[in-house]
This record gives sequence, structure tokens and C-alpha cells, in this order.
Amino acid sequence: LIQRIRKMSAERTSGVRAAGLIQLGIGDDTAILRFPPTHEVLVTSDFSLEGVHFRRDWHPPGAVGYRCLARGLSDIAAMGGAPVAAFLSLSLPAKLPQRWVDGFLRGLLALAHQYGVTLAGGDTAQSPGASAAKILADIVVLGSAPRGQAIRRSGAKPGDLIYVTGTLGASALELETMYAQPKKKLDPKKPPAHFFSSRHFYPQPRLAVGRFLRQRGLATAMIDVSDGLSTDLDHLCRESGVGAQIFAGLLPRAEGDTLEHALHGGEDYELLFTASAYRKIGRSIAGVPVTHIGEIRRSSTRVILLGELPSDGRRSRKLLPRGWEHFATARRRP
Amino acid sequence: LIQRIRKMSAERTSGVRAAGLIQLGIGDDTAILRFPPTHEVLVTSDFSLEGVHFRRDWHPPGAVGYRCLARGLSDIAAMGGAPVAAFLSLSLPAKLPQRWVDGFLRGLLALAHQYGVTLAGGDTAQSPGASAAKILADIVVLGSAPRGQAIRRSGAKPGDLIYVTGTLGASALELETMYAQPKKKLDPKKPPAHFFSSRHFYPQPRLAVGRFLRQRGLATAMIDVSDGLSTDLDHLCRESGVGAQIFAGLLPRAEGDTLEHALHGGEDYELLFTASAYRKIGRSIAGVPVTHIGEIRRSSTRVILLGELPSDGRRSRKLLPRGWEHFATARRRP
Repeated sequence: LIQRIRKMSAERTSGVRAAGLIQLGIGDDTAILRFPPTHEVLVTSDFSLEGVHFRRDWHPPGAVGYRCLARGLSDIAAMGGAPVAAFLSLSLPAKLPQRWVDGFLRGLLALAHQYGVTLAGGDTAQSPGASAAKILADIVVLGSAPRGQAIRRSGAKPGDLIYVTGTLGASALELETMYAQPKKKLDPKKPPAHFFSSRHFYPQPRLAVGRFLRQRGLATAMIDVSDGLSTDLDHLCRESGVGAQIFAGLLPRAEGDTLEHALHGGEDYELLFTASAYRKIGRSIAGVPVTHIGEIRRSSTRVILLGELPSDGRRSRKLLPRGWEHFATARRRP
Repeated sequence: LIQRIRKMSAERTSGVRAAGLIQLGIGDDTAILRFPPTHEVLVTSDFSLEGVHFRRDWHPPGAVGYRCLARGLSDIAAMGGAPVAAFLSLSLPAKLPQRWVDGFLRGLLALAHQYGVTLAGGDTAQSPGASAAKILADIVVLGSAPRGQAIRRSGAKPGDLIYVTGTLGASALELETMYAQPKKKLDPKKPPAHFFSSRHFYPQPRLAVGRFLRQRGLATAMIDVSDGLSTDLDHLCRESGVGAQIFAGLLPRAEGDTLEHALHGGEDYELLFTASAYRKIGRSIAGVPVTHIGEIRRSSTRVILLGELPSDGRRSRKLLPRGWEHFATARRRP
């Protein structure tokens, strides 16, 4: 498998030096990475488990590989960093067809190539559990940012405005549609026309937006919306020691989508950030729409408040973090 | 779980700054690590799967956690590097008792503390597969070495001598003894007297030896013996484009152990290295015995030769790489 990964990734590593990375150590006990001395190293780690993060009968292997890496890239984007290398650990059932693995790697490497990321190492194993064995991938992405410039979750101040990129809830809406037709298997040879623009199957990590915000020093705090707005805004507020007020009517929803999805739907991989009210934030950054959705408040209880549309006369209410739990309701929360 | 890891590791991070690492980013989308600008970054990734690398009825949770990290530290040792941070991804069955997880973390953190390694992040999930769900850990270890000084596998030259630290086959011998008594469960409250010096349960990563060899510029190539001498020497020879001749009578075996274990037994986590015949290598480095076991040869076929004890008059024979396959014979080889 390692040989195959080497071969498939050798065709796709031309972008590496552009990112300032020199990679050595192929075939050694460890990879060797050289970062610019002025930069710090960002590291993120994400599981993709069959039955939890994807279903083999719904998700084409290319989309599973793509999303596996997209999760890590989105974390790097949320720091305003540049991704440089990925490490893939892959545990596979003995009977899994080779073409599934090839499709998985193709999807992952296509995204890696798009952002100049090297697949620099990893591990492989056979999944335990005999006939119940599942596919399990763990990806670690290393990125970099100039020292002291990575955007943290902890910098939001009362009075800062809250912004989000793109739309919220689109991935959850697509999933709900799939749930409604559980027998229909997606044919990888005949994907629907909208497939490759699908927000669920092929989410776009917002790397250019993150970099722009870091370079201009615009964002005071940032996080990616992977678990749902209610949960991720709660994380940001906790780390910053503040509260927040968001307006339902301002949330950027996909056409026909529900408020519920926009508040709690996960895996949108949009960026949620705060900025001083005195800094101008454009309506679009790097071609991605940016929407003002609320304001950071002083709060001793760190509870997030939801103001409904001011025009409908309803009172505000507490918004509890109940972000979306992937396919299994029982996923352990960190 | 993350909270628990944070709490348990907070008590044990005093050694971090000594390693030249500044760690930020706790609670952020990624960890933020600052390496000395003169150093390059070493990265290694290793699975520890229940039923493949350990058995829940044989291995106490503390030993599973310890070995999980030891595998990564051994890879860093094999480059002559210093370990700085670890990232743990842990997938656990829903019904696993909390005390198993606590024991696992205690074992892992004890070893991390010993070498000043920070547990800097990771991911958690619930293992899929219902009643057949297994424990699965993936650990990524980051280390560092001065630029250009990490010891690769590829530097061995014909005429170099081959050395190995410690003894070979001890882990395999212990396992064989356990296989012979499959019903006997090890009682974590009453471990046998030799337990904590066990080479199988608590292997010592040879970090001090690796660092010494790098600092003195003694080793031309190095690898850790994780898959068995025959397999790992084959890796080293392939990467260096050379062959090798080793002498059965020189292999450092545990008392009463077989040649078979010394040649093919895995998980000893000793260091196998080559050095110029003109450099003096002591019989012990950093308190660990070092043994000369053979010589690097020119070889177009890259086949490893075994010379039996010169005194027994038998002819040399080819040594095929058939390193040890952990608990499952079906483990996918990279």
C-alpha cells in the first residue's frame, strides 16, 4: 500500500517547494520536514470512521478520501495557516476491494495537489473484527504560519462583530435528503450533475479566506464550523471568556433550508470569526461570501443567546450547543 | 475525554521547555509548535490496534498506552532525534470501562514525562462495529534534529560494520511464553516481579543511544528493529543500495532464546546501525550494550546473507526478510 501511495503521490508533489517546505525522509523511520525558521508549526489530527463519518453505501471512495483531508485543511484554514504535509493512517478490512482504496487515494491526492500538500507518511493495518471490520482513517495535517500570527479561538472581545463564510446547514440538508432515500446507492459512474459542487461530498476548505484574514490582521478569533454553529460558537466563546448574540434572520442559509440546520448542522467547514467593529470586513473575501451574523457580548455564564428576527417580535432565547453528531448519535464528544 | 487528557497531562508537562519546544494552541483548531529555527522536524505515525498489536486479555491498559508511544519514540531514536510532542487519536468501544482508558493514559503519559514529550492534541471517536468494536489508537510523534543531521537509512557503504543495541528476540520469547498459557490472564494488581523490566510490555526506546550516535557523527545509517532483524536490515540495505552479511554467532540473544527469534522476532525496539570500520564504537553506549553483528557488502541483488557460526563449518545462506507479524498473520505489510 505504501508503495502505491508513493507512486500515486509522486505524480502530484510539484507544488511542495512553493509552500516553503523541503521534504526528506521518504523510506526512513520518520519523515523529515524543514519549515521556514520564521514560522511556527500547526498540527491537527482527525479521524474518519466508517459508520460514524461516512457510509460505504452512500459515499463514493473518492469523496471519503477527499473529506478525510478536507477536515484537516479546514483546521489549518481556521488558524490562518498554510497546509504543507499530511500523514495518513489507514486501517482496512481484509476483503475491501483494491479499487476502493485507489478511489480513496485519488480523492485525497486530488485535494492535496490542489493546495500543494505532500502526503509525507503514515501507517497501514488490517482492521480487526473479521466480518464486522470497518474502514478507519486518521489524518494528521501539518501547516505553518509566521510566528505569533496564527489566529486563535481565544481573542474575541466584547463588542467584536461575528462573521461566517459561505452558507450554513447545506451539508446537513444534503444528508437529510439522503436519509429520506436510504435504498438509493449513489452510482460513482453516474453522479448527479450537482455532485462535485456538493457541500457534503466535496466541501471547500476556506484556506484563502483564512490566509487573507491573518495577513491583514482582521480576525480577533476564528474557528471552523465542523460540529455546527451552536457548538463551534460555544467553543470560541469559552476560549475567549465571552458570550455572544446572533440573529436568526442574518444566518446565511441555503435556499429552502431550515433554521435548525443552520444552527446545528455540522460539516459545513465554513469559517466563523470575530473582528473589531471598527475594521471593515468585505461582503466577500477570496470569492467567498462573508456574512455578519451577530456580536460578542460580555457574559459571565458564557451562554450563547439567540435573538430571533427583530421584526417578528419574538424574544431572544438561550442557544445551547447541540452540534450535529455525524451518522451516529452516540459519537463520543471530546 | 479530551478534558481528562488535558488534566492528566497538565500534571506532567514540566519537561517541555527543556526540549526547546514552546507549545501553544491548546483549545484551538490546531496545536501550535515552535521549533528552534536551526532544526528540522521529524514526524512518525503508528497504529496500535486491538487484536493486531495487543490483546485486551493479555496486555494491561498501562502497557498498551506505554507501547503505543514507545513505537513512535523508537522511530525518533532511529533518526538520532529528540522527541517533542505526541498527538493521540483514540477510537474506543462504547462499553469500554473508564478505568481502562485511565490506565492507558497513565502508561502513555508516564513514558511521555520520562522523555519530556507533550501530549499536544488528537481526536477521539467511538469505535464502529457494535459488540465487535475494538480499541484503536493512532499516535503521531513529532521530534527534531539539527538541520541535515538526522540519521537516514540510506547512508550505509560497503565495508561499514553493522551493530545492534541490547538483545534481539526477547519480546518474541515473552510472547511465545504467553501463547503457551493462553488462559492465564495477567493480573494488573499482581504483575510478576520481572513485569516492569519486561521487554515486551515496557520496551525502552533507545533515544540516548540515537542522540549519541548523531552528535558524534558515528552512524552512516540507522533503523529501529520493530519488524524483526531480517526485515529491518533488508529495509536498510534497500534504501542504501547495498547488501549485508551477518553472523549468527554474533547476534546478542537473551539467555536460552532461539536464533529464530533473534532473526525474525519483532517489537524489540533496538537500534540497528552501520558505521565506518575506521570509527571506534564502544561496547556500550549510554549504558546500553552495543554488538557488532556483521558487515555491509556490495550486492546487486540486495539480498541479505547469513553466515552461520564460522566454527560450525556450515555454509552461508540467504536470509529472507520474514519479520514478525504481531498477533495476526494477516496484517497488511506496507
